[in-house]
Amino acid sequence: MANQIPRIIIGRLPLYLRAITRLKKEGHDYASSHELGKLLDISAAQIRKDLSHFGELGKRGKGYEIEFLISKLNQILNTDDVWRIIVIGAGDIGSGLARYKGFINRGFKVSAIFDIDPQKIGKKIGDLVVKDLGEMEAYITSNQIQIAVLAIPAENSQDVIDDLVKAGITAILNYAPIYLKAPEGVQIEHIDPSVHLQKLSYFLK
Amino acid sequence: MANQIPRIIIGRLPLYLRAITRLKKEGHDYASSHELGKLLDISAAQIRKDLSHFGELGKRGKGYEIEFLISKLNQILNTDDVWRIIVIGAGDIGSGLARYKGFINRGFKVSAIFDIDPQKIGKKIGDLVVKDLGEMEAYITSNQIQIAVLAIPAENSQDVIDDLVKAGITAILNYAPIYLKAPEGVQIEHIDPSVHLQKLSYFLK
Repeated sequence: MANQIPRIIIGRLPLYLRAITRLKKEGHDYASSHELGKLLDISAAQIRKDLSHFGELGKRGKGYEIEFLISKLNQILNTDDVWRIIVIGAGDIGSGLARYKGFINRGFKVSAIFDIDPQKIGKKIGDLVVKDLGEMEAYITSNQIQIAVLAIPAENSQDVIDDLVKAGITAILNYAPIYLKAPEGVQIEHIDPSVHLQKLSYFLK
Repeated sequence: MANQIPRIIIGRLPLYLRAITRLKKEGHDYASSHELGKLLDISAAQIRKDLSHFGELGKRGKGYEIEFLISKLNQILNTDDVWRIIVIGAGDIGSGLARYKGFINRGFKVSAIFDIDPQKIGKKIGDLVVKDLGEMEAYITSNQIQIAVLAIPAENSQDVIDDLVKAGITAILNYAPIYLKAPEGVQIEHIDPSVHLQKLSYFLK
């Protein structure tokens, strides 16, 4: 059943989770779809429709109980526990991700970082020591890693993806500015700053 | 009129542009909404509806002429020329953005990077030399910069935003993991890897 919900709706759930977590920090107990909509630039009707796929999560006239909705969304998104993830590439972006303190509250922990460059292998980044890319497949298998972040130049990405998938990775967050082919059953998400900049430039003169 | 088109539609236009640019590179002259939809996991009907806001861009039975749609989308998104943008923060992410070669074909060029850390000021990153954050406002004014990328720790972000806006910045791409308040008329986009990871983890067991 879960798979019948359009990906575009799934993509909005983390935004809802982030927004209500903010409202919780600000001391709110309930959030209306209108409040959420204003924070997110999404219509209240759309938010209600999206969330209605997962049961009756709100109360008429009161809105969503924040504590309950946070726990429900974490359950839906499988982030009520912490996923160990790996980062491929110890360049600027990879290093930033390895040092980033914000993952742990959102359901993720970088457990290893890999590179192919002998000058980077063995270097300490945050709490991690850069591992040789040659150890990647064994690491994935023995630690049952399912999620990898790709932060390497575009030209090397497709080979690495193939190795990742062979080793058992089923979800990839890609920072390389290219389209990547993944086999059936492997999810890929792209982070592409140009896409966001183009949305911004639309509004400029 | 432009402002009446929902932001959520504007947000999809850069994805359409990226996808048809890919199809062009692969040698295609025409793209159907079905082909685009398959690349993007967006329904063909949604794509047709989104693009219909901007005139009759496709031909029945033939689809969209790629060259024409690329030029049209660049015109709509204001990326038919190159915007000079600035990066605030010369840490891992800021350095990665300053070195990134992928902006220029998408309508952007990092023209300066700023930091507050004396150890970073004067350091060379790619073709740029890190400038003192104290020079930021003068630089924005004299170079008529409108777009800034924020790549600094969350706790310092709100002060910097206020300074950016005072100096004339009207569009901000934010990598800091917090919500930021911007005055009326200033656009903010957030890049938050946790949001993408949570979308991925939905599909995992």
